[in-house]
Amino acid sequence: MILLDFKFHEWQWQYQISTTFFVFGIVPFVFWVYARYITASPNKYNKLEEPVKLSVPIPAEAKPHWKGKRLYPPNLTIRAANEPTKIQSYCPATGQYLGTFTATTRDEMNQQIANAKVAQKEWKASSFSLRRQVLKTLSRFILDNQEDIARIACRDSGKTKLDASMGEIMVTLEKLKWIIAHGERVLRPSQRPGPSNLLIGMMKNGEVRYEPLGVVAALVSWNYPFHNLMGPIIAALFTGNAIIVKCSEQVIWSSTWYIDLVRLVLKSLEIDPNLVQLCCCYAEDADHFTSHPGLSHITFIGSKPVAHKVVESASKELTPVVVELGGKDSLIVLDDVKDIESLSSVILRGTFQSAGQNCIGVERVICLPKSYEKLVEIFTERIKEFRLGSDIDQLDEIDMGAMISDNRFKQLEALVEDAVSKGARLIHGGKPYQHPNYPQGHYFEPTLIVDVDPSMRIFQEEVFGPVLTMIKANDVDDAVNLANGTEYGLGNSVFGSNFRQINEIANRLDSGNVAINDFATFYVAQLPFGGIKKSGYGKFGGEEGLLGLCVAKSVVMDKPIMRLFGVATSIPPPIDYPIKDDKRAWKFVSSLNTAGYDTRVWNIIKAFKKLAKGGA
Amino acid sequence: MILLDFKFHEWQWQYQISTTFFVFGIVPFVFWVYARYITASPNKYNKLEEPVKLSVPIPAEAKPHWKGKRLYPPNLTIRAANEPTKIQSYCPATGQYLGTFTATTRDEMNQQIANAKVAQKEWKASSFSLRRQVLKTLSRFILDNQEDIARIACRDSGKTKLDASMGEIMVTLEKLKWIIAHGERVLRPSQRPGPSNLLIGMMKNGEVRYEPLGVVAALVSWNYPFHNLMGPIIAALFTGNAIIVKCSEQVIWSSTWYIDLVRLVLKSLEIDPNLVQLCCCYAEDADHFTSHPGLSHITFIGSKPVAHKVVESASKELTPVVVELGGKDSLIVLDDVKDIESLSSVILRGTFQSAGQNCIGVERVICLPKSYEKLVEIFTERIKEFRLGSDIDQLDEIDMGAMISDNRFKQLEALVEDAVSKGARLIHGGKPYQHPNYPQGHYFEPTLIVDVDPSMRIFQEEVFGPVLTMIKANDVDDAVNLANGTEYGLGNSVFGSNFRQINEIANRLDSGNVAINDFATFYVAQLPFGGIKKSGYGKFGGEEGLLGLCVAKSVVMDKPIMRLFGVATSIPPPIDYPIKDDKRAWKFVSSLNTAGYDTRVWNIIKAFKKLAKGGA
Repeated sequence: MILLDFKFHEWQWQYQISTTFFVFGIVPFVFWVYARYITASPNKYNKLEEPVKLSVPIPAEAKPHWKGKRLYPPNLTIRAANEPTKIQSYCPATGQYLGTFTATTRDEMNQQIANAKVAQKEWKASSFSLRRQVLKTLSRFILDNQEDIARIACRDSGKTKLDASMGEIMVTLEKLKWIIAHGERVLRPSQRPGPSNLLIGMMKNGEVRYEPLGVVAALVSWNYPFHNLMGPIIAALFTGNAIIVKCSEQVIWSSTWYIDLVRLVLKSLEIDPNLVQLCCCYAEDADHFTSHPGLSHITFIGSKPVAHKVVESASKELTPVVVELGGKDSLIVLDDVKDIESLSSVILRGTFQSAGQNCIGVERVICLPKSYEKLVEIFTERIKEFRLGSDIDQLDEIDMGAMISDNRFKQLEALVEDAVSKGARLIHGGKPYQHPNYPQGHYFEPTLIVDVDPSMRIFQEEVFGPVLTMIKANDVDDAVNLANGTEYGLGNSVFGSNFRQINEIANRLDSGNVAINDFATFYVAQLPFGGIKKSGYGKFGGEEGLLGLCVAKSVVMDKPIMRLFGVATSIPPPIDYPIKDDKRAWKFVSSLNTAGYDTRVWNIIKAFKKLAKGGA
Repeated sequence: MILLDFKFHEWQWQYQISTTFFVFGIVPFVFWVYARYITASPNKYNKLEEPVKLSVPIPAEAKPHWKGKRLYPPNLTIRAANEPTKIQSYCPATGQYLGTFTATTRDEMNQQIANAKVAQKEWKASSFSLRRQVLKTLSRFILDNQEDIARIACRDSGKTKLDASMGEIMVTLEKLKWIIAHGERVLRPSQRPGPSNLLIGMMKNGEVRYEPLGVVAALVSWNYPFHNLMGPIIAALFTGNAIIVKCSEQVIWSSTWYIDLVRLVLKSLEIDPNLVQLCCCYAEDADHFTSHPGLSHITFIGSKPVAHKVVESASKELTPVVVELGGKDSLIVLDDVKDIESLSSVILRGTFQSAGQNCIGVERVICLPKSYEKLVEIFTERIKEFRLGSDIDQLDEIDMGAMISDNRFKQLEALVEDAVSKGARLIHGGKPYQHPNYPQGHYFEPTLIVDVDPSMRIFQEEVFGPVLTMIKANDVDDAVNLANGTEYGLGNSVFGSNFRQINEIANRLDSGNVAINDFATFYVAQLPFGGIKKSGYGKFGGEEGLLGLCVAKSVVMDKPIMRLFGVATSIPPPIDYPIKDDKRAWKFVSSLNTAGYDTRVWNIIKAFKKLAKGGA
C-alpha cells in the first residue's frame, strides 16, 4: 500500500492505493503525461536533441539597480543630433540612456542577405532533430534566464516585468514547445487524393511537399521586443530558412541582444550564425530592404500606413508579404454573464497589459444593458488604484509601465476630447502623466471613457494605448453590428453563459480571431494568427505560419502499383501529333470526358464503347 | 453461370463466372466504383442535388460553317477607331468579325461590386447541397454541349477543337467533379490540438473555421478563355463568395457567353445571378477595379509586367492578391528513358498545345547526352508534318491553330535570331506563317531550335509560343542547374526510369509544381497550383485554392468537459489588477512558465510547489 498525501493551501487530500495500481496504473499515466505534454518531441528520448548549455553575458543595463544616466530634455529624440544614421536608445520608463547604434546601410543589407543565402544553403538540408535541438536550447536558456530576458525587454520598452513574463516569455515558450512537438508533422508531405476522374485517378498520385523558401525577412513592431522578434525567427529556422529581422529603431538595444542570443545558440551547435541577422534603419532605407531581390518572403507586423509602403515596395520584386496590422477589437458582454467581477479582471488585463500597446488589445468593450452600469462601477473603482512607474528593480508596486514614446500623446488626448465633445463620459485619465521619480518617462494615465458610440473617432480609430472604452449595445444584433462596424478585423471576444448563443455570435463576427469566453488566448494556442479587412492578410503562427514559409511543391507521379506494372503516361494514338483524323480525335477526347465525368450510367457505357473503338 | 465477353480491337477475353459471385462480388464492386468515382458527392443519392436542365441559345458564330465577314486589313486593331471605350472582337484564326463590345466604365464597376455584395449576403448562408447543385448543373451542361463550348473558345482564341477539348473542357470538368466530391470536407472547421502547455492544453480547444470572404475578383488571361474563367468562378461560388471576373479584351466575345451561361445556371436555381459578373476594360480603368475597396481578394492570372501594377494598385486597399504568372518550365530527359518515341509525343503535346500559349507549357527540353540526337531527329521529322489552320468546321486536318494576336511575332523572331546568332541551330520555323485560306489569321510556324544554352535570351525569357527549345546537359547536376537557372519557378518535369533518382531530382527543382514521368497533370489533379520566384505566389486549385477564398477564423473556446464543470477563464489572484505584490506576481508567472514548458522533472515539481503557494 502507498499513501498519497496532497496539500493545497488549507485543503488536504489523502488516499491509499495498492502498489499494483501505482506501478501499472499511475506510473504509466504520469510517464504518458510527461512524454505527451512535457518533453513533447518526436525524438524525445533521443539524447541527440538535448539542449546545449549556453553562457551569455548579461548587459549592465539589465542588472537590477543599474544607475544609468538620464537623458535631458525629457522629450527625447531618438536620432542623435547631426548624425542622421545613428539611433539613440533609451528607456522610456526612466529616460536612462542605453546606447547609440548605427543604422544598417544599404551595402550592409546586401551583404547580410548574401551571407544569409550562403548559410541557408547548408541549413535547408538540416535534420528536424538538429532544428529541434536549436529550439530546445533556446527554450532552456529562456527558462533559466526569465528574469534577465524580462528586464532587457522592460528596459527598452518601459513595460512592467509582469507584462513581460506573460506577453514576452510565456508566449515565446509556447511557440517553441508547440513547434518542437508538432512542427515536423506539419512539414511532412501532404498526400492528396488522386484525380476524381476514374481513369486518371487510378493511375496517379499527388502530394504537396514543403521546402524552405530561402532567405526571408520579418519587419517587427516594438510593442513586444522579445516575442515579436522571436516568433518569425523560430518559424524561419524550423522551416529551414534564413531570416533577416528588421527591428524598430525604438527597441534596437534589446533586439541586438536577443539576436545575439539566437546567434550564440546557433554557434554553440556549430551552425552558421548568419542564418539570423538583425537590420535596423530609418524609412529612407527601408524600401531598399523590402524591395531586395534576395528576399523570398516578408512578414510585416506594424501599422497600416507603413504596410501600404511595404506592400508597394515588395511588389517591385513580386515578394509575397504577410501583413499583420492593428485592430479595433471588441469584447462583447452579454446579459447572462455570471461572474462580472471575474470578467472585469480579464478586461483590465486585456486592455492595460503593456500600457495598451497590443495589436490584439481590447479596444472596445461592447456591453449589453444588464451589466453595463455594474461594469462601469467596477472599472471606476479598480482603475483609480492603478500605479504607474518602472518595476525593473521591483522597488515599487507597479500596475502599468510607460509607453514607448510620447509622440502619440497628442493624438490620444484628441481622441478622448472628440469623444467627450460628442457625449462620452471621461471617468479617469485622458492625459499624460508626469511621474515624480521619472519625469522623463513616457507615461499616460490609465483612461476610462464610457458611453462611447460609433459617431466618435475613438470608436473607429485604433488607440493602441491605455484606454478602456465602454459602448452600450441594445441587444445581441446591435452588439454584433457595433463589433463589425469598423474597418478593422483582427480579433473579437464574446462572453456569455449560453454556449450555443455565443458560438453563433462568434460566427457572425468579422475578424480573423475570436475568443469565446476568453481573451487573446489565440496568441498562446497553435492557431494561425491574422486579421481581415484593414487588419491585414496572411497568417503567422500555427500550421499556417510554418507552411507559409515554405514552397508548397505540388508533385504528380505514377502510383507505385502502376510503376510496378510499367504503366507510364503516354499520348493515346488518336491525339498524337500529327493528328491523323481531326473528327476522331475530337470524339476520342469528348468520350473520355463523358466516361470520366458524366454520372449517367448509359452515357458512360456508350462513351467507353467509343473509346474502345479509338474514337471512330 | 454468366458468360462475360470482352472485346477490345482485335483482342478478346471470355470468362464464365458463377451467378453468386456476380451478384455478391461484381455488382457491389461496380456499385462502389460508381458511387466513389462517378457520382462523387457527399449527397449522391439526394435528389435535391440533381442537375437542372438548361436551355442556352448558341450564337450563330459558334455554329459549324458560319460565314462571318473577314476584317481588313489583316493587322487588326482590337479598339474600334474613334471609340476608345469600344472593344472589337474577331477570330484570330480567320480574321472573322465577332462583334463590338463596350468596355466597363468605372461607374459600372462600382455598381457591379455593389450588386455582388447584395447577392453574396444571401449566398454566404447557402447549403453545400445547393452549391453542389449549381456545379452539377454546370457540369451536366458542359458534358451535353462540349462541341458548342469548344467552338466558342476556338472562334475567339484561334485554337483547335482538340486543344479546347483537353485544355478547356476536361480540366474544367475535373475541377467541378473534385469540388463536388471533396469541397465540403475541405471547408469543414479544422480542429487544432490545444496548447502544448499541460495546464492550458487540458482546458482549451482551438479550431479554424472557414467563412466566405465576400466579393472577390479574378483577372484572367486569354489563353484558356473557358477554363481560366471558370476555375475562379467555381471556387468562388463553392466557398460562398460573389465574384467579378475581369477578362482580357482579346476574348470578350466568348467570355460574355460563358458568364451568361453561369448566370443562367444560377437563375435556373433561383439564385441571384449577380453573384457572377463580367468586367472588361483597358489598362487606364483597371486600376480603379484592382484598388476597389469592395473587393476582398484578387486572383491574377497573367504576365509579370501587369502583375507589378496589380499588386501595387491592390496595396492601396491592402487587398491580398494571388499572383499566377508564366514560367520557363523545363522538361528534363535522363539517359535511362526507355521509350523515346512515346516521350517525344508528350513533349510535342506539352509544347504545341494551344500554339504554345500555356503558362505551364514546356519551354525548355533539357536532355542528357544519350537521347539528345535521337530526340532532335524525331522532332525534325514530326514537326515537319504539322499543318496549321482552323478546324472549327473540321474541313481540314489541323495540328496547330493560330495565336491570339500578331503583336508578339517580332519578339518571337528576335528571340530565335538572338539564339541562332549565338550558335543555336534553327531546324524548323522561326517566323510567321501566311495561311493561304486565312490570310488575316495570326499564325506562327511551329519552331524547332536546338543547341540552346543559357547565354541566349530564349533560354531565359518566356516564349509563350509554338517553339520547341532543346538544351543539352552534361549530367544530372548540370540538368538541375540549367532547369533552376532562370528567374521563373512555375513547373518542371523529369523523365527517367529510376524512380529514386527522378524523385530526388524533383526535390531539387525550384518550382511550385513538378511532374515525375509526366507533363502538366497538376492541372488535372487536385493539387494546388502556383509558382515561386518570378512566377508569382499564392495558390489556386485544390484545397489551398478553396481555403484561400475564405476567412480562416481562429476560434478559441473552453473544452466541452470544462464547460460542463463550469471552469471558465479567470485571472489568477496574484496577477489581478491592482497587483498586490509585484515580486509574488513575477514568481507566480515564472513558475507557470517552468511548470508548463520545462522538461526537467525536478524543476517542474518545484514550480508546482511555488504555484500552490500562489507565487509566495
